[in-house]
Amino acid sequence: MREFEFIDWIRTRGLPGARPGLVKVGPGDDCAVLAAGDRKHDQLLKTDGLIEGLHFDSGASPLQVGYKALCRPLSDIAACGGRPVAAVVFAAINSKRSSQWAMALQKGLARAAEKFKCPVVGGDVSVTSGPTTIAASLLGTVAAGRALLRSSAQAGDTIFVTGELGGSILGRHLAFVPRIEEGCFLQSFSGIGAAMDISDGLARDLHHILRESGRLGCRINARAIPISKAARRLPGDSLKHALGDGEDYELLFTVREKRAAILESTWPFASKLTQIGKIEAAGSRVFLVSDGQARLLRKRGWEHGRLRS
Amino acid sequence: MREFEFIDWIRTRGLPGARPGLVKVGPGDDCAVLAAGDRKHDQLLKTDGLIEGLHFDSGASPLQVGYKALCRPLSDIAACGGRPVAAVVFAAINSKRSSQWAMALQKGLARAAEKFKCPVVGGDVSVTSGPTTIAASLLGTVAAGRALLRSSAQAGDTIFVTGELGGSILGRHLAFVPRIEEGCFLQSFSGIGAAMDISDGLARDLHHILRESGRLGCRINARAIPISKAARRLPGDSLKHALGDGEDYELLFTVREKRAAILESTWPFASKLTQIGKIEAAGSRVFLVSDGQARLLRKRGWEHGRLRS
Repeated sequence: MREFEFIDWIRTRGLPGARPGLVKVGPGDDCAVLAAGDRKHDQLLKTDGLIEGLHFDSGASPLQVGYKALCRPLSDIAACGGRPVAAVVFAAINSKRSSQWAMALQKGLARAAEKFKCPVVGGDVSVTSGPTTIAASLLGTVAAGRALLRSSAQAGDTIFVTGELGGSILGRHLAFVPRIEEGCFLQSFSGIGAAMDISDGLARDLHHILRESGRLGCRINARAIPISKAARRLPGDSLKHALGDGEDYELLFTVREKRAAILESTWPFASKLTQIGKIEAAGSRVFLVSDGQARLLRKRGWEHGRLRS
Repeated sequence: MREFEFIDWIRTRGLPGARPGLVKVGPGDDCAVLAAGDRKHDQLLKTDGLIEGLHFDSGASPLQVGYKALCRPLSDIAACGGRPVAAVVFAAINSKRSSQWAMALQKGLARAAEKFKCPVVGGDVSVTSGPTTIAASLLGTVAAGRALLRSSAQAGDTIFVTGELGGSILGRHLAFVPRIEEGCFLQSFSGIGAAMDISDGLARDLHHILRESGRLGCRINARAIPISKAARRLPGDSLKHALGDGEDYELLFTVREKRAAILESTWPFASKLTQIGKIEAAGSRVFLVSDGQARLLRKRGWEHGRLRS
């Protein structure tokens, strides 16, 4: 069973134990959104794990692994337009790792904690015979009713991304900057549609937004996609890397058409902001437009589809 | 490096990224305690993990594993006198497990969620080559300044435990009831000292309270210790099982001497409540008193120490 099938199945079962009004957004978005007691804020809750060999190589620096472990869920808090409050960290460390490795992991966590104001207030450390596994769980906060969600795109919205995409495997996947300030700015900006962070790759994550927003479609301009230098250094088509590599941890979001130019003119950050396409009413498909040709873009990259110039 | 050495080292490093006033209790207690915005409540944050082969056998029912995964941190929320709000769960499932196993695990989580009013609002599911590893992270709530802590014992306090101890390996470690209602009652009862849940075994956990409360000592009455039927069924000395087995998930707490009888007379629960000894001013030692003889009780069980009748 795939992850999304599993999430679908979980969703069909409802949320046992939830009191009415508590859970504003449950499984399937970047964070869960909970009503806080005070009516001014909502709470964000998120857990995200790293497994050695899957999310980091055995030879990766433990400082970088610790940094990444906290920054991945921080990127989800950012995608919801929230601010982190605090984290707790579970670490099952392979028995062959030294105390020095564990301490450097902790230093990496602390570095991210300090940089992004997300103290690690507790944890659980075990030794495992398997790959080292680290799960960081974050509490965040956002203005009540203002969390940015995957499900709020509308036909006609302009699609944006921050930063540059592709090639994160060359190092950026261990050293990225979660877009917390950018997310908070978007949360307070009027006219934002859907938002998420790009972890599975632009092509796949666009499908997530379309799916969650009710089977919309979209059209992406191939020439507009901001391709990173790292993607250009990799063998193969750099556009394919930008569309499919994943682990970019940039924000992917939509803006009501009338507000797009205003967003661009008021964007206060050094990080790049790029219009890459439009949300359409048609069902669940992503078309990549290049030189007047529209190709169907599947989750794992492109395929030649029927022409829709 | 042992877990407590690691926690000590983490503590010496402070809490990078924490704004002043946020963290009331950091690493080392059952839960972290955070100031909520509203002055009426504090927030509790906790993560706790299970590793196959260490916290459950490969043959354990996934329903029970899921139940235990949520109930372990629920027991920590109980130990702080709090109520659960919501949980997020990270699961790295061994690649040889079936979808049915993963679904039964989820059902076990849902069963605990429903029973203890702690909805699972999000998660992260991966496949791992190593042992199945599940970490549940909980947000809880408690009246501001009222969280029960390991550090609040005083010389003269009467020591209590709930329930019966030892032998949890025969099944109770997969099917225990976190003492949430009992913890909430204690939180509102005047005169409670320190509190924690018994996960490492009574002997070891008593040392944790003594250490966190500033190198106090204590004297435990061997005859008073409530020994479970399971402990009596196991080979060996049943008292040793009650002192050392661990995974009881009962509450261990202290009460100011004058309030002990009142607590006993007002205790409204079916679960057993037992006085087992007294906190003393002397440094960091646990004495087990039996037939007028006092033996030094080390963390891992008893040893013959000098007589202190």
